[in-house]
Amino acid sequence: MTYHRFLIVSATGEKYAAAEALAQEVKAELNQLGEIAHLATDIDVPDFKPGMVIAVGGDGTIMRAMKKYSLYSMPTFGINGGTLGFLAGAEKDDWRESLKRVIDGKVEIEKRLALTFTFRGVTYGPIANEVFLSHQEDPMAYRVTIDGEVFWERIEARGFMVATPTGSNAENFTFAGPPIFPTSRDVALTPMASPNPAFRAFTIPQLSDDGEVMIEFLDGKYADVTVQLKADGQKYVPDEPVRPGESIVVRKDDVPLLLATFGLPQHLRALRKKGFPLKG
Amino acid sequence: MTYHRFLIVSATGEKYAAAEALAQEVKAELNQLGEIAHLATDIDVPDFKPGMVIAVGGDGTIMRAMKKYSLYSMPTFGINGGTLGFLAGAEKDDWRESLKRVIDGKVEIEKRLALTFTFRGVTYGPIANEVFLSHQEDPMAYRVTIDGEVFWERIEARGFMVATPTGSNAENFTFAGPPIFPTSRDVALTPMASPNPAFRAFTIPQLSDDGEVMIEFLDGKYADVTVQLKADGQKYVPDEPVRPGESIVVRKDDVPLLLATFGLPQHLRALRKKGFPLKG
Amino acid sequence: MTYHRFLIVSATGEKYAAAEALAQEVKAELNQLGEIAHLATDIDVPDFKPGMVIAVGGDGTIMRAMKKYSLYSMPTFGINGGTLGFLAGAEKDDWRESLKRVIDGKVEIEKRLALTFTFRGVTYGPIANEVFLSHQEDPMAYRVTIDGEVFWERIEARGFMVATPTGSNAENFTFAGPPIFPTSRDVALTPMASPNPAFRAFTIPQLSDDGEVMIEFLDGKYADVTVQLKADGQKYVPDEPVRPGESIVVRKDDVPLLLATFGLPQHLRALRKKGFPLKG
Amino acid sequence: MTYHRFLIVSATGEKYAAAEALAQEVKAELNQLGEIAHLATDIDVPDFKPGMVIAVGGDGTIMRAMKKYSLYSMPTFGINGGTLGFLAGAEKDDWRESLKRVIDGKVEIEKRLALTFTFRGVTYGPIANEVFLSHQEDPMAYRVTIDGEVFWERIEARGFMVATPTGSNAENFTFAGPPIFPTSRDVALTPMASPNPAFRAFTIPQLSDDGEVMIEFLDGKYADVTVQLKADGQKYVPDEPVRPGESIVVRKDDVPLLLATFGLPQHLRALRKKGFPLKG
Repeated sequence: MTYHRFLIVSATGEKYAAAEALAQEVKAELNQLGEIAHLATDIDVPDFKPGMVIAVGGDGTIMRAMKKYSLYSMPTFGINGGTLGFLAGAEKDDWRESLKRVIDGKVEIEKRLALTFTFRGVTYGPIANEVFLSHQEDPMAYRVTIDGEVFWERIEARGFMVATPTGSNAENFTFAGPPIFPTSRDVALTPMASPNPAFRAFTIPQLSDDGEVMIEFLDGKYADVTVQLKADGQKYVPDEPVRPGESIVVRKDDVPLLLATFGLPQHLRALRKKGFPLKG
Repeated sequence: MTYHRFLIVSATGEKYAAAEALAQEVKAELNQLGEIAHLATDIDVPDFKPGMVIAVGGDGTIMRAMKKYSLYSMPTFGINGGTLGFLAGAEKDDWRESLKRVIDGKVEIEKRLALTFTFRGVTYGPIANEVFLSHQEDPMAYRVTIDGEVFWERIEARGFMVATPTGSNAENFTFAGPPIFPTSRDVALTPMASPNPAFRAFTIPQLSDDGEVMIEFLDGKYADVTVQLKADGQKYVPDEPVRPGESIVVRKDDVPLLLATFGLPQHLRALRKKGFPLKG
Repeated sequence: MTYHRFLIVSATGEKYAAAEALAQEVKAELNQLGEIAHLATDIDVPDFKPGMVIAVGGDGTIMRAMKKYSLYSMPTFGINGGTLGFLAGAEKDDWRESLKRVIDGKVEIEKRLALTFTFRGVTYGPIANEVFLSHQEDPMAYRVTIDGEVFWERIEARGFMVATPTGSNAENFTFAGPPIFPTSRDVALTPMASPNPAFRAFTIPQLSDDGEVMIEFLDGKYADVTVQLKADGQKYVPDEPVRPGESIVVRKDDVPLLLATFGLPQHLRALRKKGFPLKG
Repeated sequence: MTYHRFLIVSATGEKYAAAEALAQEVKAELNQLGEIAHLATDIDVPDFKPGMVIAVGGDGTIMRAMKKYSLYSMPTFGINGGTLGFLAGAEKDDWRESLKRVIDGKVEIEKRLALTFTFRGVTYGPIANEVFLSHQEDPMAYRVTIDGEVFWERIEARGFMVATPTGSNAENFTFAGPPIFPTSRDVALTPMASPNPAFRAFTIPQLSDDGEVMIEFLDGKYADVTVQLKADGQKYVPDEPVRPGESIVVRKDDVPLLLATFGLPQHLRALRKKGFPLKG
């Protein structure tokens, strides 16, 4: 399959002037090559029906594009216009060659596992990286249940995280959660900074089917303590901290995130950037 | 589906007299319940065509039964006749009730990922837990390749392991490899005791399809050093240590291992036995 | 050496009614035994000149007593009136026997290492557990210098901690810092949740002499980011977050914290409470 | 203090021809500078009474020199003639300048903690890096006692190690033991590859005084199992594996190991070589 209709998105605003300029260059290059390409700011996307989205920017920009356009079956290809582009298939110095490979269809369309979470009857998603309950100061107590079976009845930790393979090398890894290859179907269950040495992160496959993980916030050290609920680095429910006795349920999103990549070589290069060495 | 034809296996020999006696009891109980049951030592198995194998003993006995009978599409159910039965669905004090649930078909037939490895042109398998290259004394250097792409070009470690989900909580975990839920399709790539702090175990999905991991033993500290090749705790190629420059290739076995279990509650109970606490 | 003049302190307020009541009982028991004992709320301490302070409450109460009275060469003995008393020598059910051993001088007066930190020209202390720079959301970059030599030139992490042996099993341990026996003279340098897998906590002896550790907050992801400075769980400089380019210097406090304990058996029992098992 | 009488040692034999040649160069250079210098192979050492030993080679050569000559109050300075010289103060490309600094006394004489161990009534030492009980195949059970108090009543692990600060970055670190700065007085107690997730390495100060750690080998999986006893990478008691019920006692050696170094900058450079990065 080859690609000939491209939608180009980038971060916008003063801080992202370089990314915006690069997005213009990408558009010009694609037009030069005889392909149809429009900036998302210039076009009515549903009518345009692009075959592929080109996201120019950092991981945030690429992730937002994936989350927005996968619903319409449009895969996203990332060009790293920032400092760390873990999801990007091309860098500032090789994007012209990379674009030609994309046009020729020499990319894999990966179906990355995405999550949803349900809190107070409302379901939020898609979540690309992680769902994250945390409290900055003291260990809180949580109960974790998989498919109705209690996995941890009471675990004291500063927080608790469910991370996708895509997200396993981000927040999850910094809290000693297991690095999982991005094309896996498993998720990581990772307690954050538990005072008990026996609590370890686990990798589970249940969410790749119809399974669910429930995390209940049991109680904190003080009566009025609340817990922040974040997902993909954002406060999804900003003015509503989680109170003792409340819980969230995490499931697979029905729509996977479509990311166009150069496959294994790209993933390995991304790991190098993260500090996982090639040799030593 | 219900089960009515049972083959009963147990460890044999002086040390395992208790397991052998328990196997006799299991046979008597099944006969009492009107089911057909024979000890493997008394019967021609291919002619008998059992619907299920009952393995009485420790994890070694249950694992050997799985590896032997899965090829004939016969699942194994384990009764723990030893001290640690991570794979067992029943314990010494509840096996009568458990057997009734098995007869009634109230078990899940799990298709556990199994591995093969190829060394000097010969392929060995099925491997239920792990393939394991190691040297007791000094760090050796290895190269690790996934699907033809170099993952680690040169990693110094005492050894290197590819562990199945079933095996991830055994040897793999003791060397800081990630615990993976047994029904996952991922494997762990785990360096053993590397002197370099940046080398960490990874979870990868490639072996669940047609992927392969190649581990090359590059060199050791001294010219005449060799490396032991073990799998599931045994020296598969006893008189043939691996020499510098040689490699092994690990792939998924075509036949998964069929284990009859009570599902998630059984897995969680097994984790408790291993020292992963329920609360604390 | 025996002890006959006791000052009794406890947490006060509605939440701590049980501890206050226990403190009264301790006073009555000591008077009954013919010893001089006063509650801190009833007496002018400098005039009273007690030989030992009895702190009734949780670790917070015992720690505050140590920090306050060590300056006057008065050691503190803790009676656990809360749920977790890591520093306590006696529990609710054995404090009468323990008090007799204290009177008879069958305690060790440990000189626990304490820290100070200097920020914007002001020095704060004594710090019993840890000095702690952190930011909840994103990794920040820090430089860490020991005795004028750069240890880490630029380390990205959510925070950075210097922990005493006393504090090494608290916050420090939850961020994978090394557990150090409480009577050691070393401190732990612990990066919190670094995204780089090669950064590990270290144990260093320099602060036991005249050494110093300087932690500079280099920069954050966004221009206006600040970092919280905490010590022993409290915001020491509440309205003054640390700005990019600022640094703190951590040194040994000249006065060690004097804690009366039953030595090794007490320390081992405390470790059991923390979840470090005796066997398994 | 300045130094004018030097004894030069190096590894000998065909494999170490380069180190031997470098030792000759070092001698020539010292003579050229007007200093008295002899190769250990040419001289009666006790009569010669050198002020300093120059060890040319890898860590093994430097360590052997320290262990041999510290008894006579002669410090060792290392010149790295191998691939990894963690103890060396000079490298192949800077040893001439370094020697001048040594002659001028611009070195610190560190008193590195050394150990002894007692087995079947015989005491062995000095041990520079670690004492190490291990079994390659299965977890064995050990009891660990500090100063007569049981620290771990029964710990299953592949082995157990007591590591000095000097040794903490070697074998100890590869088994997740804590890295301890080399001038510390603490030792690491490190279980090797325990299947129980709650067993963690500890740093203890007891051996810096008159304390002792006793490690009992309780039992193995099979009746006839034995355990290897090694120290500093060597089998000290080659034909005598440790049997179930036997124990070893580890104490501080009365004589510390004297190593001449350039202090903190040298230690930090050594850590870089080991893979602990400066930034990232």
